[in-house]
Amino acid sequence: MLNATPLSLAAQAHPRRPALVDGATVLDYAQLDAHVSELAGRLAAHGIRRGGRVAVLLDRSARAVQLVHALAHLGAVLVPLNTRLTPAEMGRQIAQAGCRHTLSTLEANPPVEATPLNALPPAPKTLPPPAPLEAETPFGILFTSGTTGRPKGALLTWGNMFASATASAFRLGALPDDRWLLTLPLYHIGGLSILMRSALYGSAVVLPGFADDRFETETLWARLHTDRATLVSLVPTMLYRLLQAHPRGEAWPQSLRLILLGGAAATPETLEAALESGLPVAVTYGLSEAASQVATATPEETRRKPGTVGRPLMGLTVRVTGEDGRALPQGEIGEIRVRGPMVMPGYDGDPQATAAALQDGWLRTGDLGYLDAEGDLWIVQRRSDLIVSGGENVYPTEVEAVLREHPSIAEACVVGLPHPEWGQQVVAGVVARSGETVSPEGVAAFCRSRLAGYKIPRKIVVFPSLPRTASGKIMRRRVAAAISGKETYAD
Amino acid sequence: MLNATPLSLAAQAHPRRPALVDGATVLDYAQLDAHVSELAGRLAAHGIRRGGRVAVLLDRSARAVQLVHALAHLGAVLVPLNTRLTPAEMGRQIAQAGCRHTLSTLEANPPVEATPLNALPPAPKTLPPPAPLEAETPFGILFTSGTTGRPKGALLTWGNMFASATASAFRLGALPDDRWLLTLPLYHIGGLSILMRSALYGSAVVLPGFADDRFETETLWARLHTDRATLVSLVPTMLYRLLQAHPRGEAWPQSLRLILLGGAAATPETLEAALESGLPVAVTYGLSEAASQVATATPEETRRKPGTVGRPLMGLTVRVTGEDGRALPQGEIGEIRVRGPMVMPGYDGDPQATAAALQDGWLRTGDLGYLDAEGDLWIVQRRSDLIVSGGENVYPTEVEAVLREHPSIAEACVVGLPHPEWGQQVVAGVVARSGETVSPEGVAAFCRSRLAGYKIPRKIVVFPSLPRTASGKIMRRRVAAAISGKETYAD
Repeated sequence: MLNATPLSLAAQAHPRRPALVDGATVLDYAQLDAHVSELAGRLAAHGIRRGGRVAVLLDRSARAVQLVHALAHLGAVLVPLNTRLTPAEMGRQIAQAGCRHTLSTLEANPPVEATPLNALPPAPKTLPPPAPLEAETPFGILFTSGTTGRPKGALLTWGNMFASATASAFRLGALPDDRWLLTLPLYHIGGLSILMRSALYGSAVVLPGFADDRFETETLWARLHTDRATLVSLVPTMLYRLLQAHPRGEAWPQSLRLILLGGAAATPETLEAALESGLPVAVTYGLSEAASQVATATPEETRRKPGTVGRPLMGLTVRVTGEDGRALPQGEIGEIRVRGPMVMPGYDGDPQATAAALQDGWLRTGDLGYLDAEGDLWIVQRRSDLIVSGGENVYPTEVEAVLREHPSIAEACVVGLPHPEWGQQVVAGVVARSGETVSPEGVAAFCRSRLAGYKIPRKIVVFPSLPRTASGKIMRRRVAAAISGKETYAD
Repeated sequence: MLNATPLSLAAQAHPRRPALVDGATVLDYAQLDAHVSELAGRLAAHGIRRGGRVAVLLDRSARAVQLVHALAHLGAVLVPLNTRLTPAEMGRQIAQAGCRHTLSTLEANPPVEATPLNALPPAPKTLPPPAPLEAETPFGILFTSGTTGRPKGALLTWGNMFASATASAFRLGALPDDRWLLTLPLYHIGGLSILMRSALYGSAVVLPGFADDRFETETLWARLHTDRATLVSLVPTMLYRLLQAHPRGEAWPQSLRLILLGGAAATPETLEAALESGLPVAVTYGLSEAASQVATATPEETRRKPGTVGRPLMGLTVRVTGEDGRALPQGEIGEIRVRGPMVMPGYDGDPQATAAALQDGWLRTGDLGYLDAEGDLWIVQRRSDLIVSGGENVYPTEVEAVLREHPSIAEACVVGLPHPEWGQQVVAGVVARSGETVSPEGVAAFCRSRLAGYKIPRKIVVFPSLPRTASGKIMRRRVAAAISGKETYAD
């Protein structure tokens, strides 16, 4: 544990290395630190103090990067809000985390009252020094995506962030001239951890230059080439779109040494297409509660064993358990529990949720998976998605894979609806392939020869598209609500 | 800080990566850990316990690497002895550190009574688990080289070792497929730190294959090529010999991404020759008391500014001070003091030496240097070598550089001898170039036009060679003794 912010460490150790690449503008670590110190002074003049919780609406801009570092500089606690939330949802998170200030770096007016950075008071003459950080000092509160259950604020410490960044370096490698393209939103751990890693390593963050902070495949493709990124984090949807727009044979940049693929499970087809194109894909599994990566397969491991998320990162231990918390034999599917220096101390202000999630230092991820004979982890299913119907377990991914084999179906989402007799009933929302028509009866017949009876969806509804979170996960609750008729779903 | 040994972390996180390359034999981390656990069991059966101090005589062999890790596995304290010491010197260090056990991995019979590894009892059925390590847990006691003053045992903690290895990674880069050639002896911090870094990063150590553990230029040259090392640590003498044997134009291996050059100051000529050959030299300055590197210039920085040792590593602060400990203005030469998580808590069992060396958390290195306008550190002189004659400071390196310009002189060492009138008198030991004869009178005349009168050696003695430590430093005290006639010097 190092007793200073990653940025102040980098500015001391590597002042002339590039820190932030924004098109033609490049700031080195000394320059970035100077900007951040000044911004920290303005935040202090605004009334933000060490330990204060600050809600922030962040885009993928230089000022957003500086705001994250400036709050760290003051020792304030970052509370990033998902910018896609409704005003009411934002208001609840701001209140839940006890934030006295809300700041925004968005171009447009934010959905809640927030101070834009240019409305901050000027900095005092004497700028505040970087705050001393201990392992236990809070870094931020990250609300879990909320696709299931009520939002909980995962409290991450600086000890969590340093341990995660260090272990990630020794899994993926870190070079002084690395350049990490910031494709993921900064309100997710996937985006934030890029900033922390890059500062700690003294390497550069490259901004994606998305207009209005909206993901654009062609902008990303262009930036990959012009900005000579060596690392990029993608969710499967982004990789899918890149591969569709630039299929096999089109030149990916030579500079790219690693694509960190996570946030959701990639379909085998996307992964296969990426490997056929020779891309250095590293499949990862992580969660906010563990400060990002839990396990990551290197590109070499991904090529050898496509689909695995590899071994746990250095210092993390993974245990696959039954309901009673006891480890299951190798190869058996159970709940993934993790322990190590990256694991959060708990959910902020929620002792009940914390007690349910953390048992004897082990974090219950709620996800299902198994360890193979080589100790590599495979993710089978998000636990909260598990459907139990008539006492039989149904794994939606298994049913979805069958549905996707149907010639007329492009996408599928299988969920459980409450059922008086069976507990849960298996139902599916599907999207037709372009130009195709899906007959629910025909699909059910198609399934009958491929799945045990209790796994076959009792209801199949055709939608124009499936709702997804910013990180590419299908919002299963909304699909379930649409199918059950409780909510009208429109993209 | 990670609560386990670097090897046990690597074996969990990266079991299949190569750990130890010994000619055709390659052990991966799982295999190395299995060997080390078994050896730890045998050491435990021999009576070695957590916290026990164990003197070790180490060569650069696989069994020596395993012994270092096995002692860590038990939480025992490593006390490596310089294998070139006399039996009396070894005995004093063993007693001073309170070692109850002495072990040896040397081929030959060691100079003191020591247990060879094959004489250890068999391991018990249940092998001991790896010891939990805290930041304060002692790693080892390293006796400083003893070219000046009485030997002191620098106590290094695991916190020191982890901080050093991490910061080194972010200065030099670390890649999963790195291979570090172990050229330096394991009884020096330069050699030991290669083991610790490689395990933490999950990359490989390549053994040099020296017969009888003696440095051999041609073996090193061959291993650099056959074993595809990416990193190598060299002292200037080693680099000099490599460059002499394989001058410009002869192909160095393409795999080599970095030569870490330290342990002593390289002459400008050696550095220049290396840069002209296009070698990726990173000049470093470090000391046992700071667990290895203090400052390191990357190859790019070394090319741009040959001679600097670059900026302090991440987390370390360097201050150049006057005698009163206050920082001097930039550019002024003073004593280098360093503070940070790599700095030892003190000299073992020597509160007096500790109090003299550590003041308010700042380690007095005893070395002289300055920081330039860019914050890069330059080493001017080892403080203990400073000659004060008639109230004037004489820096031996300055006089030595002039002597080396003389057409008949290959090497020079300038020291101060006690003098009743002037306090110290400047004298020089020199080595003639092959086929040349050195006339002391002629050399003095040569100096007269190049140096102020008080800097000119009053006595010049021609030797067949200069005595050096294993790490390549000239043993100035022995040269001084030989010149003053108190001791007969023979190579």
